[in-house]
Amino acid sequence: MQRKKTRLIRIGKIPIGGTAPIVVQSMTNTRTENVADTVAQIKRLIDAGCEIIRVAVPNMPAALAIEQIKMAVDTPLVADIHFDYRLAIAAIERGVDALRLNPGNIGNPDHVALVVKEAKKRHIPIRIGVNAGSLSKEMIAKYGGRPTAQAMVESALSHIHILEKHNFSDIKISLKAHDVPLTLSAYQLMSEATEYPLHLGITEAGTVRSGVIKSAVGIGALLAQGIGDTIRVSLTGDPVEEVRVANEILKSLGLKQYGPTLVSCPTCGRCQLDLVNIAEIVEDKLKLVTKPITVAVMGCIVNGPGEARDADVGIAGGKGEGLLFSKGEIIRKVPEDELVSALFAEIDKLDKEAN
Amino acid sequence: MQRKKTRLIRIGKIPIGGTAPIVVQSMTNTRTENVADTVAQIKRLIDAGCEIIRVAVPNMPAALAIEQIKMAVDTPLVADIHFDYRLAIAAIERGVDALRLNPGNIGNPDHVALVVKEAKKRHIPIRIGVNAGSLSKEMIAKYGGRPTAQAMVESALSHIHILEKHNFSDIKISLKAHDVPLTLSAYQLMSEATEYPLHLGITEAGTVRSGVIKSAVGIGALLAQGIGDTIRVSLTGDPVEEVRVANEILKSLGLKQYGPTLVSCPTCGRCQLDLVNIAEIVEDKLKLVTKPITVAVMGCIVNGPGEARDADVGIAGGKGEGLLFSKGEIIRKVPEDELVSALFAEIDKLDKEAN
Repeated sequence: MQRKKTRLIRIGKIPIGGTAPIVVQSMTNTRTENVADTVAQIKRLIDAGCEIIRVAVPNMPAALAIEQIKMAVDTPLVADIHFDYRLAIAAIERGVDALRLNPGNIGNPDHVALVVKEAKKRHIPIRIGVNAGSLSKEMIAKYGGRPTAQAMVESALSHIHILEKHNFSDIKISLKAHDVPLTLSAYQLMSEATEYPLHLGITEAGTVRSGVIKSAVGIGALLAQGIGDTIRVSLTGDPVEEVRVANEILKSLGLKQYGPTLVSCPTCGRCQLDLVNIAEIVEDKLKLVTKPITVAVMGCIVNGPGEARDADVGIAGGKGEGLLFSKGEIIRKVPEDELVSALFAEIDKLDKEAN
Repeated sequence: MQRKKTRLIRIGKIPIGGTAPIVVQSMTNTRTENVADTVAQIKRLIDAGCEIIRVAVPNMPAALAIEQIKMAVDTPLVADIHFDYRLAIAAIERGVDALRLNPGNIGNPDHVALVVKEAKKRHIPIRIGVNAGSLSKEMIAKYGGRPTAQAMVESALSHIHILEKHNFSDIKISLKAHDVPLTLSAYQLMSEATEYPLHLGITEAGTVRSGVIKSAVGIGALLAQGIGDTIRVSLTGDPVEEVRVANEILKSLGLKQYGPTLVSCPTCGRCQLDLVNIAEIVEDKLKLVTKPITVAVMGCIVNGPGEARDADVGIAGGKGEGLLFSKGEIIRKVPEDELVSALFAEIDKLDKEAN
């Protein structure tokens, strides 16, 4: 998993690209101008492990609200702006840390020049965000009547070109689609074509139930190819869930430490205890643990300690009794009905060692 | 997404490898010798879209039960056997369609020869399944004291070699770990080293909540690299959920049609209706639809039809009213409180057209 080389930018205090850790972002779904709601949601996102927050700025009250939001939270804030350069200027003046804005959509070149000038003055990066569904009619016609990876990359490059003409290179790029193979191709092409850092996401992935899978496959496949510097999971649901999923994706690839890990086997005909129930109880318990320990819940002694030899602590079920083990070594035999409490005692010990 | 070339094998009626579609497998967690429970679970797995079923065969009653299970279900059956060649012989005699068995673990070469002879006679493939956690002490010592991708591949090749010495090549291979990067490396190496079809999985991925993400990242990343001929998602939970997740992974990569697709946006400050709730209602409705139609639920008219132009039917919210659209074209405006029922009427129309 060799990471593709990208240029380092900085959104507020957070570095993105280069060798910086991959950053988790999300977006509020409150009305931005409702500062109390927006700040409350941002705090929940931060608690879940979100490092950069985007807010929609569809109108002037939203742009002006950024000032108060910034006073309440420390986390870098990105303003999502579609066509109106005045909203971009207002957001910059109110202290926003980055913009998502496609300069080709602004129209008047003087207005673009003004936004770029103000952004440059304050070291505010601009994300160019091309979505498959928002490609221009001309671009779609050019590529055979449907959005293709080439069309998405060409569209992004045309926006980049506008910024580069103004000698502005504090850029990051996204190329989202709800179709995963299209998204993969677009980012792969872009990664060859440019060194700007890439913001990954599958857009309109759907509800939590299926959207989690699409996002994990799409974002995970790109990260596994070394592509991507920051990620946002899009789900129709509570954005806190987006942040949890994004962090779990990074954790699964060893790209981030994010709380404890539960290793548990799928159970089979060899299993002699109610493992599903035990695993769920242990998972609940682990919600209170912040240290990145690995805990194993295994159905049988045959697979138990061996298959989970890297676990800091684990149990393996048997008939009437089970094993408590650590790092592949058996600590002791425990009667079945004391297995979970013995495990919890060990988890508590490990968690205390951390603090 | 160019698929790596592999040899075609056949488990019962199901082809695996070559250009055959990627096959979804699961494993029962009933006691195999409890035929009624096992058959009932297998039928639920088949209904969810499972194409090959594995059962644990830890003892002789389980091996003998295969005969009755085979009479009740048509789907190919794999016997999971660990050390005892007599269980393999019994499973073959009772009509099993494939074995999961590592010949190096059988011990006595005469016993291996007997199993291979019986398998060959009936065209029964053998899966060699190396798990990171079950590597021999010698192999782990050789590779620096911990399981590495090289150690896993070398272990698999040694088992393969035993079968090849018997002129047996009806083989498929798995190399599972609960660590995703280790799993990716092992399969990538193996894919270079052999043309046998590969069975993908992340083992002991955990409960549904986090195991889904690990499995989607690991299996998805390999499939996106063209690696993998059959997949099994392992979750500590109902195996029916494993099958749903496996099929969603394939669907997200365009590798399988699997029911309808819901495209829905993550909502933002522009959204003026309760989109999360509407998306969940629509998702529930879609559970009754089997045709692979795409339905969009979009928060605003700005993004609505455009971002979901490939949807067979969709709605985009506005203030007081919304749009009903199809394939990027607006059908008509609809008052907000009639939006969902108008969408359902269109879905019903499409679903009927299918039948």
